[in-house]
Amino acid sequence: MSRDDRPLRCRPGAPHNERIPMTALVIDLNADLGEGFGRWSLTDDERLLSVVTSANVACGFHAGDPSTMRRVCELAAERGVRIGAQVSYRDLAGFGRRSMDVPRRELADEIAYQIGALEVFARAAGARVAYVKPHGALYNRTVHDAEQAAAVVEGTLLAGGERRLPVLGLPGSRLHEAAAAAGLPVVPEAFADRAYTARGTLVPRTEPGAVVEDPDEVVARSLSMAVERVVTAATGERVAVPARSLCLHGDTPGAAGLAERVRRELVAAGVALEAFA
Amino acid sequence: MSRDDRPLRCRPGAPHNERIPMTALVIDLNADLGEGFGRWSLTDDERLLSVVTSANVACGFHAGDPSTMRRVCELAAERGVRIGAQVSYRDLAGFGRRSMDVPRRELADEIAYQIGALEVFARAAGARVAYVKPHGALYNRTVHDAEQAAAVVEGTLLAGGERRLPVLGLPGSRLHEAAAAAGLPVVPEAFADRAYTARGTLVPRTEPGAVVEDPDEVVARSLSMAVERVVTAATGERVAVPARSLCLHGDTPGAAGLAERVRRELVAAGVALEAFA
Amino acid sequence: MSRDDRPLRCRPGAPHNERIPMTALVIDLNADLGEGFGRWSLTDDERLLSVVTSANVACGFHAGDPSTMRRVCELAAERGVRIGAQVSYRDLAGFGRRSMDVPRRELADEIAYQIGALEVFARAAGARVAYVKPHGALYNRTVHDAEQAAAVVEGTLLAGGERRLPVLGLPGSRLHEAAAAAGLPVVPEAFADRAYTARGTLVPRTEPGAVVEDPDEVVARSLSMAVERVVTAATGERVAVPARSLCLHGDTPGAAGLAERVRRELVAAGVALEAFA
Amino acid sequence: MSRDDRPLRCRPGAPHNERIPMTALVIDLNADLGEGFGRWSLTDDERLLSVVTSANVACGFHAGDPSTMRRVCELAAERGVRIGAQVSYRDLAGFGRRSMDVPRRELADEIAYQIGALEVFARAAGARVAYVKPHGALYNRTVHDAEQAAAVVEGTLLAGGERRLPVLGLPGSRLHEAAAAAGLPVVPEAFADRAYTARGTLVPRTEPGAVVEDPDEVVARSLSMAVERVVTAATGERVAVPARSLCLHGDTPGAAGLAERVRRELVAAGVALEAFA
Repeated sequence: MSRDDRPLRCRPGAPHNERIPMTALVIDLNADLGEGFGRWSLTDDERLLSVVTSANVACGFHAGDPSTMRRVCELAAERGVRIGAQVSYRDLAGFGRRSMDVPRRELADEIAYQIGALEVFARAAGARVAYVKPHGALYNRTVHDAEQAAAVVEGTLLAGGERRLPVLGLPGSRLHEAAAAAGLPVVPEAFADRAYTARGTLVPRTEPGAVVEDPDEVVARSLSMAVERVVTAATGERVAVPARSLCLHGDTPGAAGLAERVRRELVAAGVALEAFA
Repeated sequence: MSRDDRPLRCRPGAPHNERIPMTALVIDLNADLGEGFGRWSLTDDERLLSVVTSANVACGFHAGDPSTMRRVCELAAERGVRIGAQVSYRDLAGFGRRSMDVPRRELADEIAYQIGALEVFARAAGARVAYVKPHGALYNRTVHDAEQAAAVVEGTLLAGGERRLPVLGLPGSRLHEAAAAAGLPVVPEAFADRAYTARGTLVPRTEPGAVVEDPDEVVARSLSMAVERVVTAATGERVAVPARSLCLHGDTPGAAGLAERVRRELVAAGVALEAFA
Repeated sequence: MSRDDRPLRCRPGAPHNERIPMTALVIDLNADLGEGFGRWSLTDDERLLSVVTSANVACGFHAGDPSTMRRVCELAAERGVRIGAQVSYRDLAGFGRRSMDVPRRELADEIAYQIGALEVFARAAGARVAYVKPHGALYNRTVHDAEQAAAVVEGTLLAGGERRLPVLGLPGSRLHEAAAAAGLPVVPEAFADRAYTARGTLVPRTEPGAVVEDPDEVVARSLSMAVERVVTAATGERVAVPARSLCLHGDTPGAAGLAERVRRELVAAGVALEAFA
Repeated sequence: MSRDDRPLRCRPGAPHNERIPMTALVIDLNADLGEGFGRWSLTDDERLLSVVTSANVACGFHAGDPSTMRRVCELAAERGVRIGAQVSYRDLAGFGRRSMDVPRRELADEIAYQIGALEVFARAAGARVAYVKPHGALYNRTVHDAEQAAAVVEGTLLAGGERRLPVLGLPGSRLHEAAAAAGLPVVPEAFADRAYTARGTLVPRTEPGAVVEDPDEVVARSLSMAVERVVTAATGERVAVPARSLCLHGDTPGAAGLAERVRRELVAAGVALEAFA
């Protein structure tokens, strides 16, 4: 079992940060944006910025050249979409998907660097960096690795200054523990296209059925997550999912269309789409 | 004759930005710092930070990893040394010394990115990025290239927000023209270890005697530049040098020792060492 | 007028390398392949490898991660397509499209490095690197810049060892002059989607009509270039085009389809598609 | 206990590759060379090349620009020093010292890429890449990680073609197991400046006394390793050390001087210094 797939020490009932209300029928939609680099593009930023309420903007370490960062920030600000720093290991060749043993101080400084660079473009667009979310292997690793989780929090504090930037992530993760301990708001997210265990944790990607591919099912799960705060586990039980935000994927064919449909059906069901930050 | 060596359209008598007084016997000392990267180091940052009043801190594009940036900012802030963003082409392999045809918008965004990243560490140290100075090939190119000069100014404006960050550079350069036209303060600098022409421009590096290597002469020239605002040209004339700052080099053997001596002798001559920003 | 757009010192009647016969009705088709990097892809390598006879494979400096290089080499070798090293400036962020003042020795060594890396994958696939073609800004610059042209030739000699690798490029370019002078075979190419002047040079991209966008016209020009070795200039004259290879573009929507059609119609017209190396 | 420090499954008595004779009083000296990058340098390559019989040349992924690679190869070839590919994770910022979860195929291709690039400069200097040795975190990881060990072997096979390149490394490592299983010669090395356990494994760096700092002791241990094939463990026992090569460090102050002294005293003791490849 690889590092990514160890069962999550998820505690669905754990108290989350009080600043963020969990009123039923309010949800945020987030997606990774700006994940091109120079000549290469990946995500349909323009279209997804009409769907999400929070944009996780790549900051140059796994993707995201400065001009793309600027453009995404401008579009996000125009549409009232919140700008989050999607921080990563320094790994363009691996798209930030390769876990790295970066020493704590070094990682903290790399996180701060990325947030600072994005802040320039957010401010130039009349906004601010409103939250932080780790990308890829760093996201997966900080679910379990307390030291790297602490580094991400330290970098967030360093870059945030007097502002206490919320950390978007997996409920029950080490990252959320470290962020909460440091006084940062934590925002739990859920994945409509991932299978859950009876304990409310994600089914490891190495197991069959880990990813929900049927669009109708993704939509149905989004609705039950947003409206009832529950999801049906792979083993059939209904489990609580304390999500303030739903993560939509934008980098696969058909992803933008599915994201638009999820948004439409949430609105039709009376769910208010509201950023958390 | 290469791009770097074309005679400079220098106008020593040209009015410089009024915000910056040119009172005799006041000078700033600047040097490039933090020019290591990861395992590699280059400049004796600790020692030079006891000499200069302004530190040009590498921002990660030609040198300068985040942890080095943080440490240099912390030391500079402790000692009251101003922090400047030493912005560069994206070129670690060439140390930013290879001129690049970067499109204007792209270059502006890369400049802003670097300033933003540095700002995080300056603020965390209780300071701010106080000015901008291009590095290496970008410095040389923006002496003559109006478009890249405009890009550097655009990036500086973008990152500076409501703050009008001064631009440290060669008097008479396109960069200073563009900065002044955009309302940014311009700060002229001089080089005690470079030969000047009778017109007050730098002798191209390709010509013999372009670099002054005798330490005594470097000290003597520093004094005449700071006290009398003149320097003896390679052809023997005394020419005006309107410098508010002297650039000291820190990346050669013996450089730190020479910088210390220049500082000592300036102070002994009654020159006040004062940052410009 | 930018560096790229200066009129080319093209001499259509100049003798080309004798080793490469210019028999009518024989042509090579080349395209840039493997121009993704890690998570990002650009060209439809699989499809284009059924069209071309020579594949210009990106070597990691502007694009082309090792796994992509390996895969493209394997597919090319399977289909009998020749493998060429598409060498570039070290510039992932700019996709090698930003001209750089790289010193001659440094550039030569960077060229050799890239060819050597590709050779490993070509050999592992049972083939060899069969030729060299500069990419992007390096291609444009070595049309006019004798020093960088010499560096590309030096790198090619260094990497080729006892093999004299052909250099694919623009007829009349400095690169071809330097290659021929060094005893390397030169292979002239033409562009079916670019307008030509009455002197047989390319119409600069900055001028209207520089790029031929009508697919029918691209096909017609391909035919006249391959069969009659002529093309109609923008000003109406018929001019000689001494091409041994036609360069097809693969990185725009519809490009692969157009490339397939060009190939089909060339074959239908009795043109033999044959690699030059 | 970190990954690097887990006790090594070392089997000092295990049979090593028969192609490499272990005649007493013959030893190879290896060191990491060419570990600068562009403007930065680290190792005193010129001086160390007069000491070692095998040069582990950095290939551009953790250090080693093409011009440095070329120069080191030229010097090594002149002096009859064998050239080895010091392959690494792609990690300039971390100098290859950060363990990375690189997928097997990807890692194999990255290894092959590096060997291929170095081969060009080795051949141009009249030599060949004679062996492979992983650097830094990859070295430490492949002691224990069978999958990454297999990837290094796969990359070595891919790049070596019909040549079976020896793999220099820690006796008993997974890397040596995988190499031997694939038919590659394995060459065991020892470290004169590292403490050993009674089982013949390295004392983890996290423990006190792990590194031997007294120059006299380093020399004494070099002699006992080369002459008697034993070393005194941290706990006092004499343990067998089946080394065909001694690794000397060149990147600390005084390192080159100590390396020269080790060489001198080995020669004085009648030890023949001979490359293994």
